[in-house]
Amino acid sequence: MDLDRILAEIVDEIAPHRGEGRVATYIPALARVDPRKFGMAIATRDGAVRGVGEADERFSVQSISKVFTFALALEKVGAKLWERVGREPTGSAFNSIVQLEAEKGVPRNPLINAGAIIVTDHLIEANDADAAIQWVLTVLRDHAEDQSIGIDEEVAASESETGARNRSLAWFLASFGHLDNAVETVLSAYFRHCALALSCRQLARAALFLAFDGEDPVTGERIVAPQRCRRINAVMMTCGHYDNSGEFAFRIGLPGKSGVGGGILAIAPKKGAIAVWSPGLNDAGTSTVGALALERLIEKTGWSAFA
Amino acid sequence: MDLDRILAEIVDEIAPHRGEGRVATYIPALARVDPRKFGMAIATRDGAVRGVGEADERFSVQSISKVFTFALALEKVGAKLWERVGREPTGSAFNSIVQLEAEKGVPRNPLINAGAIIVTDHLIEANDADAAIQWVLTVLRDHAEDQSIGIDEEVAASESETGARNRSLAWFLASFGHLDNAVETVLSAYFRHCALALSCRQLARAALFLAFDGEDPVTGERIVAPQRCRRINAVMMTCGHYDNSGEFAFRIGLPGKSGVGGGILAIAPKKGAIAVWSPGLNDAGTSTVGALALERLIEKTGWSAFA
Amino acid sequence: MDLDRILAEIVDEIAPHRGEGRVATYIPALARVDPRKFGMAIATRDGAVRGVGEADERFSVQSISKVFTFALALEKVGAKLWERVGREPTGSAFNSIVQLEAEKGVPRNPLINAGAIIVTDHLIEANDADAAIQWVLTVLRDHAEDQSIGIDEEVAASESETGARNRSLAWFLASFGHLDNAVETVLSAYFRHCALALSCRQLARAALFLAFDGEDPVTGERIVAPQRCRRINAVMMTCGHYDNSGEFAFRIGLPGKSGVGGGILAIAPKKGAIAVWSPGLNDAGTSTVGALALERLIEKTGWSAFA
Amino acid sequence: MDLDRILAEIVDEIAPHRGEGRVATYIPALARVDPRKFGMAIATRDGAVRGVGEADERFSVQSISKVFTFALALEKVGAKLWERVGREPTGSAFNSIVQLEAEKGVPRNPLINAGAIIVTDHLIEANDADAAIQWVLTVLRDHAEDQSIGIDEEVAASESETGARNRSLAWFLASFGHLDNAVETVLSAYFRHCALALSCRQLARAALFLAFDGEDPVTGERIVAPQRCRRINAVMMTCGHYDNSGEFAFRIGLPGKSGVGGGILAIAPKKGAIAVWSPGLNDAGTSTVGALALERLIEKTGWSAFA
Repeated sequence: MDLDRILAEIVDEIAPHRGEGRVATYIPALARVDPRKFGMAIATRDGAVRGVGEADERFSVQSISKVFTFALALEKVGAKLWERVGREPTGSAFNSIVQLEAEKGVPRNPLINAGAIIVTDHLIEANDADAAIQWVLTVLRDHAEDQSIGIDEEVAASESETGARNRSLAWFLASFGHLDNAVETVLSAYFRHCALALSCRQLARAALFLAFDGEDPVTGERIVAPQRCRRINAVMMTCGHYDNSGEFAFRIGLPGKSGVGGGILAIAPKKGAIAVWSPGLNDAGTSTVGALALERLIEKTGWSAFA
Repeated sequence: MDLDRILAEIVDEIAPHRGEGRVATYIPALARVDPRKFGMAIATRDGAVRGVGEADERFSVQSISKVFTFALALEKVGAKLWERVGREPTGSAFNSIVQLEAEKGVPRNPLINAGAIIVTDHLIEANDADAAIQWVLTVLRDHAEDQSIGIDEEVAASESETGARNRSLAWFLASFGHLDNAVETVLSAYFRHCALALSCRQLARAALFLAFDGEDPVTGERIVAPQRCRRINAVMMTCGHYDNSGEFAFRIGLPGKSGVGGGILAIAPKKGAIAVWSPGLNDAGTSTVGALALERLIEKTGWSAFA
Repeated sequence: MDLDRILAEIVDEIAPHRGEGRVATYIPALARVDPRKFGMAIATRDGAVRGVGEADERFSVQSISKVFTFALALEKVGAKLWERVGREPTGSAFNSIVQLEAEKGVPRNPLINAGAIIVTDHLIEANDADAAIQWVLTVLRDHAEDQSIGIDEEVAASESETGARNRSLAWFLASFGHLDNAVETVLSAYFRHCALALSCRQLARAALFLAFDGEDPVTGERIVAPQRCRRINAVMMTCGHYDNSGEFAFRIGLPGKSGVGGGILAIAPKKGAIAVWSPGLNDAGTSTVGALALERLIEKTGWSAFA
Repeated sequence: MDLDRILAEIVDEIAPHRGEGRVATYIPALARVDPRKFGMAIATRDGAVRGVGEADERFSVQSISKVFTFALALEKVGAKLWERVGREPTGSAFNSIVQLEAEKGVPRNPLINAGAIIVTDHLIEANDADAAIQWVLTVLRDHAEDQSIGIDEEVAASESETGARNRSLAWFLASFGHLDNAVETVLSAYFRHCALALSCRQLARAALFLAFDGEDPVTGERIVAPQRCRRINAVMMTCGHYDNSGEFAFRIGLPGKSGVGGGILAIAPKKGAIAVWSPGLNDAGTSTVGALALERLIEKTGWSAFA
C-alpha cells in the first residue's frame, strides 16, 4: 500500500472543501488560524511518519490531549479512576452539565470536559499542577521522540480567561467532593494540557502505541498493557466525539478523538496512528475537512475496526 | 486456536455464576425460563458452528432481531432510513421516550425500541405486516441455512398484550407523521420479529456475514456491501446495549447486540460470529453471564475490534 | 363599578390587536374559526352575566374543561386522586412526556394533558365513557343553568383522529398501570369533554361557584367545600397555563385556565368569574388577545388574588 | 378575630410535631440549631406584631432574603431585570443547573438560586458588594423599623466556604456573559444577604408592605407600586418554594417564601404578613412544622388568596 500516494490523493480531493466549517472563536489564538490550513500524517509500525500539507505545523490539540491524560491516569490509579467517572457515551455536547446533576457529579466518560477534569485531578499530587503538567510533557515527548513538544502559553492563558463554563463544571464536581485538589489548581493543569501544541507528525507518532496493543512498535517499549490499550480505544470509539461519536464510528469506523483546534487523532489497530488537522469545525466541534480526509483514507486503505 | 477447548473452559468458568442476574418477567413465557440455562456458539469462516451448553435450545432473541431488520431496511431503502432515525448512542434506557420529545420524533438510533419501530415501518409495504414478517423469516432462514427458524407466537401475543410502553413510543412517532403504516400494523410486525426463536447455533450462523464484510464466507453470497456491513457493526458497537453500550465496548471490545431474552450476539471481524444465551439480565437488560462468557472468550482468543 | 362600561372599553382597546396570535390548526374545526373573533363575559355574585363582543357564540373550550373534570374527580374520589397525579407546575409544554418518564407515570398536575387523562379515567366506571360524559354534561348544564350546553361532535371526532400524541401519553400512563379503564375508553371521554362547546356567558356562569368558595351565589347551592374550592383555584394559579403559568400569574394575578380553542377562564375570588375568547394563541397555547383583555380588566377593576 | 388566641392554639397544636423534618447540615451554624425551636409572628395593618414561641429569636433567613433583593432589583432596574431571568416555576430543586443549559443561562425565576444570583448582580454597582449589602441592610432596617438587624458573619463565611454549587451556578451564568460584576463579588453579596439574621417579628414587620399593595400601612410610605407588589406576590406564589411551590399554594394558599434556615414568610393580602420559624425541613427545603403552623393559621383565619 503506497501511503504517500494515498496522502497526496487525499490532499487533492479535499482541496475544494478547504475552509469549510467554522473555526473556534472563543479565544483569539484559535480564531486567527487560517481556516484553509490542512495537514495529515500517518505513523506506521516501521516508525515511518508520512505527512502531507501542513503536517509539520503545530496546532492546539485541545481535547485530543484528553486521550493521553486518560491513559496516564489509568496507569497511575488504575480502576480507581472509575469511581468518579463513567465510560458511557452521553448523547450530549462536550461541555454539557445536565447529566452531571442527575448522576451526582460523576461525569459519563473521561473524554467530555467534566470527565477530563476528573482525570486531570487524578494526575495531580498535593495540589502541584506544575509537576503534573511536567509529567504529561515528559511522557508525550518520549512517546513522540521529540523533546521540542510544548505548551502554547498564550492559548493556556486565554483558556483560563474564557474558562467560565469549565469553571462551572469543576465547581459542580467539587460540590460533590469529587476533586482532591483545589478547583483552580485542577483547572490550571487542565487548561495547560489542552493548550499542548503538536504537529500532525508529532501527534501521530506519540499515539502510535495505541495502534499496537500498547507497545511502541519502534522502540519495543510497552507503554500500557494490551487490555488497557484496547479499552482506551473502546472509550475513544464510543465517546471520542461527544454527540458526534456515533456518526464518527459510522463514517470512519476507527477509534478517534477530536479537538476544537481542528485536530483529529484516529487509531487503526495493527496499522498505525493518523493525525489530521484543519481548523473548520462542524456543530459537534469535529473538524469538517479532517473528518472528510479520514473518510477518504479509510476508503483507500480499507482500514476499519469493523472489518 | 482450539475453539472447542476454549468453549469447554468457558462453560466451566461461568458455572459458579449460573443463575446470576434477573430474568425478564414482563411476559410469562420469558419469566418461566430456567435462569441457570447457558448456551454459546461460534460460527467461523469455514462454516463450522461450534456450540456448548444449551447451544441448540431456542430462545426468544428479542432485540437481537433489530440487527437483522436494520440491515434489511438499509438494503430496502438505503440512506433514506436516516431521515427518520439517527445513529448516535443515547445514554438512556432501551424504552426511553425523553429524547424523542427534544428531537421531534426522530429516535437516536435503530437499536433502541423507538428506532427499531421506525425500522420495522420501513420494512412494511401497504400496511401488510405479514408480508414483512415473512420476508424477515425467509432472509433469516437463508442466512442460517435452516428452514425451521420461526416465531414463538405465544411470546408475540404476550408482547402485544403487555406492549403499552411500545404503543406509547409508536404513537409518539406517529404524532410526528413518522410512520407510514398504521400504528398497530407496525407494532404487530415489531412484536413478532422480537419473538423470533433461535438457538445460539442458528443465531451465530445467521449473523456470520457481519464478520466477513457482508459476504457469507460459506456460500460466498454477498449479503450487504462491505461499507454497509462495517456501518452496521459500528452502530452495534456504539448503540447495541442502550446505556450499557460503552461498558460493553470497554469490556468486550466487539460490536454486539443484546436482547432481554438473555441472548447476546457479538461480531469478531475476520474471525466469526458469536451467540451466547443466559436468561439473567443486568440493569441495562444485558445478559450477566452472557457478557461474562464473552469476556472470557476475548481473553482466550485475543479477538478485539481494537487490536 | 360599572362592569358594562369596562367591558365596552376593553372591546375598544383590544380592537387593534384582533387577529393577533396563531389559531390552532391541528383540526379543521378549530383552524377555520375567524381569528378576529372576540367575546368576553363576567358573571357576578348577583347572578348577572355581562357580555360583550361574541359573548354568546359557542367555541370549543378544550382544556378549560379540565377544571370541571378535575373538580368532579375530586368530589368523586377525594384525596385518592393524588395517588396518580401531582399538583406541581411543570415548566414544560401541555403535551410533554419527558417528566412522565422520570416520575414513573405520575403526571405533575391535573391540568396538563397527561394529568387530565388520569382525571378522566377517575370519572369513568366500568369502562363506560358515555356515562362519564353524560355526568360532566349534566353538571355543567346545572352549573350554567342552561340545558343547551353540548359537545361539538365534529371536534370530538377530529380530536380522536389527530390524537396520536394524547394516545402516546395515555399508553405511557397505561404502561405503569395508572389507568383503570381501557386506553381508548379514557381517550374517548377525554376527547369529548375537550370538545365541549360553550359561549363566554355559559362558561362564566358555570364557573361562578369557584369565585365564591364553592357555593353558587345565585342558587345558594354548595358545589364543593370551601377548602376544596380554594385548592382548585390554587392549582389553576400555579398550573393553569402550562409553561406560561408564571407569566399569567404575573400579568393577570388571577387563577385561570386556557384552552387552545382560544378561551380563557379566570376566577376573581369574591368578585366573579370571567370568560374571554379570541382564537389567536401565543407559543404556550394561551389566547393572545384574551390575555390582553384580562390584563385590561384587572387594571380597571383592581381585581387580584394578590391585593 | 383574636390573633393572640389563634397563635396560642397553634403553638399547642404543633407541639407534638416539634423536631420533625431534617435540619440543614451543610454549615455548622445551621446544623447546631435546636430542631425543636418554633416561633411565629403576624404583623397586621395597625402595626401590631403579635408573636408566639421563639418569635424574638433571630434565625438565618437564607432564601427568604431573595424576596427583598428581588423587590430592590425591580425598583433599581425595572423590566430590564427580565432580560436575564424569567418568571416561570421550574419543577426543579432550588440549586438545579439543568434548566440553565437548555435556556442558555437565563434562570427560570428570581427565587431559585441561579435567579437570585442574577438579582444580586443587578444590585451591585462597579463591583462593590459592600455597598450593595449596605443598601439591603438599610432598606430592611427601615421596613422593619429596627436598626439592629444584621448579618450573621459566621454563617456568611460558612456559606462561602461550602458554596461550591452556587459557584458552579454563578460561573455558568458568567459563561453566558450574564453577570456584570465579578463572580466572587456577586457571590460575596449573595452569601451575605442569605446570612441575614432576623426574628419572626422583624421579618413579618419588614414584609408588611407586601400585604398592602406595596404601601407600609403603619408609616403610610409607598415602598413599591401596587402593580409591582402584586407581581412580587405572584412570583412568590408560583415559585417561592422551588419544586414544592404547587404544594404550598395548594395547602396554604398564600404567596410565600421558604428558607433552609427553617423560616417561611407568607403574605395574606389585605390582612398581614406572617413569619414562622422551625428548623426541620422537608425534601424541598421548606420547614415542616412551619408549613403545618401556616396550615392551621389559614384554617382558623380563613385567610386565602383564593377566597
